[in-house]
Amino acid sequence: MDVSAAAALGAGIAAGLAALGASLGNGSVITKTVEGIARQPEAKGALQSTMFIGVGLIEALPLLTWVLALLLMFTK
Amino acid sequence: MDVSAAAALGAGIAAGLAALGASLGNGSVITKTVEGIARQPEAKGALQSTMFIGVGLIEALPLLTWVLALLLMFTK
Amino acid sequence: MDVSAAAALGAGIAAGLAALGASLGNGSVITKTVEGIARQPEAKGALQSTMFIGVGLIEALPLLTWVLALLLMFTK
Amino acid sequence: MDVSAAAALGAGIAAGLAALGASLGNGSVITKTVEGIARQPEAKGALQSTMFIGVGLIEALPLLTWVLALLLMFTK
Amino acid sequence: MDVSAAAALGAGIAAGLAALGASLGNGSVITKTVEGIARQPEAKGALQSTMFIGVGLIEALPLLTWVLALLLMFTK
Amino acid sequence: MDVSAAAALGAGIAAGLAALGASLGNGSVITKTVEGIARQPEAKGALQSTMFIGVGLIEALPLLTWVLALLLMFTK
Amino acid sequence: MDVSAAAALGAGIAAGLAALGASLGNGSVITKTVEGIARQPEAKGALQSTMFIGVGLIEALPLLTWVLALLLMFTK
Amino acid sequence: MDVSAAAALGAGIAAGLAALGASLGNGSVITKTVEGIARQPEAKGALQSTMFIGVGLIEALPLLTWVLALLLMFTK
Amino acid sequence: MDVSAAAALGAGIAAGLAALGASLGNGSVITKTVEGIARQPEAKGALQSTMFIGVGLIEALPLLTWVLALLLMFTK
Amino acid sequence: MDVSAAAALGAGIAAGLAALGASLGNGSVITKTVEGIARQPEAKGALQSTMFIGVGLIEALPLLTWVLALLLMFTK
Amino acid sequence: MDVSAAAALGAGIAAGLAALGASLGNGSVITKTVEGIARQPEAKGALQSTMFIGVGLIEALPLLTWVLALLLMFTK
Amino acid sequence: MDVSAAAALGAGIAAGLAALGASLGNGSVITKTVEGIARQPEAKGALQSTMFIGVGLIEALPLLTWVLALLLMFTK
Amino acid sequence: MDVSAAAALGAGIAAGLAALGASLGNGSVITKTVEGIARQPEAKGALQSTMFIGVGLIEALPLLTWVLALLLMFTK
Amino acid sequence: MDVSAAAALGAGIAAGLAALGASLGNGSVITKTVEGIARQPEAKGALQSTMFIGVGLIEALPLLTWVLALLLMFTK
Repeated sequence: MDVSAAAALGAGIAAGLAALGASLGNGSVITKTVEGIARQPEAKGALQSTMFIGVGLIEALPLLTWVLALLLMFTK
Repeated sequence: MDVSAAAALGAGIAAGLAALGASLGNGSVITKTVEGIARQPEAKGALQSTMFIGVGLIEALPLLTWVLALLLMFTK
Repeated sequence: MDVSAAAALGAGIAAGLAALGASLGNGSVITKTVEGIARQPEAKGALQSTMFIGVGLIEALPLLTWVLALLLMFTK
Repeated sequence: MDVSAAAALGAGIAAGLAALGASLGNGSVITKTVEGIARQPEAKGALQSTMFIGVGLIEALPLLTWVLALLLMFTK
Repeated sequence: MDVSAAAALGAGIAAGLAALGASLGNGSVITKTVEGIARQPEAKGALQSTMFIGVGLIEALPLLTWVLALLLMFTK
Repeated sequence: MDVSAAAALGAGIAAGLAALGASLGNGSVITKTVEGIARQPEAKGALQSTMFIGVGLIEALPLLTWVLALLLMFTK
Repeated sequence: MDVSAAAALGAGIAAGLAALGASLGNGSVITKTVEGIARQPEAKGALQSTMFIGVGLIEALPLLTWVLALLLMFTK
Repeated sequence: MDVSAAAALGAGIAAGLAALGASLGNGSVITKTVEGIARQPEAKGALQSTMFIGVGLIEALPLLTWVLALLLMFTK
Repeated sequence: MDVSAAAALGAGIAAGLAALGASLGNGSVITKTVEGIARQPEAKGALQSTMFIGVGLIEALPLLTWVLALLLMFTK
Repeated sequence: MDVSAAAALGAGIAAGLAALGASLGNGSVITKTVEGIARQPEAKGALQSTMFIGVGLIEALPLLTWVLALLLMFTK
Repeated sequence: MDVSAAAALGAGIAAGLAALGASLGNGSVITKTVEGIARQPEAKGALQSTMFIGVGLIEALPLLTWVLALLLMFTK
Repeated sequence: MDVSAAAALGAGIAAGLAALGASLGNGSVITKTVEGIARQPEAKGALQSTMFIGVGLIEALPLLTWVLALLLMFTK
Repeated sequence: MDVSAAAALGAGIAAGLAALGASLGNGSVITKTVEGIARQPEAKGALQSTMFIGVGLIEALPLLTWVLALLLMFTK
Repeated sequence: MDVSAAAALGAGIAAGLAALGASLGNGSVITKTVEGIARQPEAKGALQSTMFIGVGLIEALPLLTWVLALLLMFTK
């Protein structure tokens, strides 16, 4: 297996795991936000702003990993 | 295993994991939305708008990964 | 392993994982819808419309992955 | 491993995962329907119609994957 | 690994996964039916008819997969 | 790996998974039946007849798979 | 790997999975029977007769698989 | 890998899985028996006799598998 | 891989799985015994005697497997 | 497999696992924060500041691992 | 892979699984003992003596497996 | 596979597992801290100081492992 | 793979599994001890002495395995 | 695979598993300590001292394994 082939395979694994992790993490946060709004509709603003911050924080590292996968794909 | 073969295999793994993650994450959010509407039908609007935002946020990274898989497929 | 063989294998993995994810995600949503209707038969309309939207959103990415698997199969 | 062999193996994996996912998803929906009828026999009609729609929606993607497996088997 | 060998291996995997999935799905539905009859013996007819429909729907895709495995075995 | 060897290996996998699935599915149904009889001894007849039907339905596909494994063993 | 070797390996896998499945399934049924007798000692007869029938039904397919493993061992 | 080697490996896998399954199944039954005696010391006789029957039924198939592993070891 | 090597590897796998299973099974039984004594110190004798019988029954098959592993090690 | 190829593969695995871990850890913390705000909106400040500190602490090691993956990619 | 190498690898697997199993089994028993003492400090003697017996019984088979691993290491 | 390649692969595995473990461990501690503050805002100081100590203790070994991965990368 | 290489790999696996098992087992015991002290601070002495004995008993086999790994490393 | 390569790979596996185990074990203990302090702030001293002892005991074996990984890295 030469370098480009390993890079292509590695990029696929890294991006796949990142997408899996981000989806599960985001899903957990947004699920709880929806539950909170259903229980207390008047707290919608506070919950949604926290949700947006949280989703941003969660997607930080998967995005970095996605960038790494792109780098792995195009520089090797 | 040469480069194109590894790219094809990697694209399959990445896209498969992305679809798996997105389905599970979306399923969790929409399940809770349906439960919320069944319990409080008057909050349907607030819940559905949050659901649409949440689904959009969850599908962000899997879509990027799907794009990466396409790139992996056609540029290598 | 040459290119076409890897593409065939990758298409099988991608489509299989997509079908697995979509089935589990849809199953969770529809299960909760049935439970909601059993508990509040008068909310059947609101629950079913949310269910149709949710199933559509969940199947978006697996369908894209299925298309990718077809592309992988016929262009390589 | 040449092309036909990989296609045969890939078709087996794809169809197997699709059948596994569809069975689990359908099983969850129908289990809850049976539970709902046992608790409220008068809602049998509404529950069964939702169940039929749900089973149809769940089996959409596994059927597409089954078709893809057939294609994989006979065109390669 | 030549074509027939891969087809034999793929048929084994596909049929095995299909049997596993169908058993688990059916087991879940029938378990709940037995529980429902134990709790409300007068609803036995409604529960059993739903159970028969449900088992038929669940076994649809595994049977198709079993057919695919037979095809894989005898046409390659 | 030639054809007969792959067929032998595939038959082992298919029969093993079928036995595993059927045992777990049957175990779940019969466990619940025993629990139902322990709670309501007067419903023993209705529960046992449902149990016999259920066990028959569950063992349908694993038996077909066992037949497929035999075919795989003796025709290749 | 020639035919006899694959048959020996396949027989080991099939028999091992069958024993694992039968033990778990039987264990579940007998555990619940013991619990039922501890709670209602007067229902001992009805519970034990159901247990014997259930164990017989559960061990049907693993025994068939054990026979298949023997066949696999001695005819190839 | 020649025949004896595969037989040795297969015997190890079969016996290991059989021991694992039997231990877990027996452990579940005996655990519940101990709990039953702790709760109702006067039912000790009925519980222990059921336990002995149950352990015998559970160990039937693993013992057969152990015999098959011995056969696999000494006849190949 | 020649015969002795496969026998050594198989013996390691069999003994390892047997030790894992026996430890988990015994741990479950003894845990429940300790809990029973903590709740009813006057039933210590009955619980401990059942525990000794149970541990003996659980360790029967793993010991047989350990013997098989020894045989595998020294006769091949 | 030469050095660069192993480095590319290793970088993919390391970055993928880091992204998976960070997403799950962050998701757990933010989920509980959202739940806390939904229950006590007046504690929003204290909860969010703890959340920011916690997310920072959790992402420390995954970021270091991401850096290690970059090093692995570009220095080998 | 020659005999000594396989023996070394097999010894590692056997000893590792034995240590894993013994730790989990012992941990379960001692955890419950500590909980029992915290709830009833006057039963400390009876609980600890049962704990010592139980730990001895649990460690019997892993120790035998450890001995087998040593034998595997030094006689092959 | 020569030495540098194995070192690169090993470093990736070690750093990835360390990041995964540290994220899960930290996530558990901080989640409980957030929950504690939401329930008792006046104990914020005591909880946060314990949290900082705990995070430091948890990250000790993963950091050592990260250092080992760096050593593995640069000295081999 | 020659002898020393297999010994090095086997030592890594054995020591890694031993450390994993010991950490989980110890973590369970100490977690329950902390919970017991938080509930009954006056039983601190009895709980801690049991904890020390328990940790010693749990670490017995992993230490033996660690020694075996050292032996595997230096005598082969 | 020669000796140094196997040693490098084995060191990575051992150190990675040790870090994973230590993080999970420590996380469990510290999580419970934080919960105990949130419930009884006056027991902070007793809980933290037990926590420090416990963390020390848990990290004993992973540290030894880390040392073994270093030895494996530098003496082979």
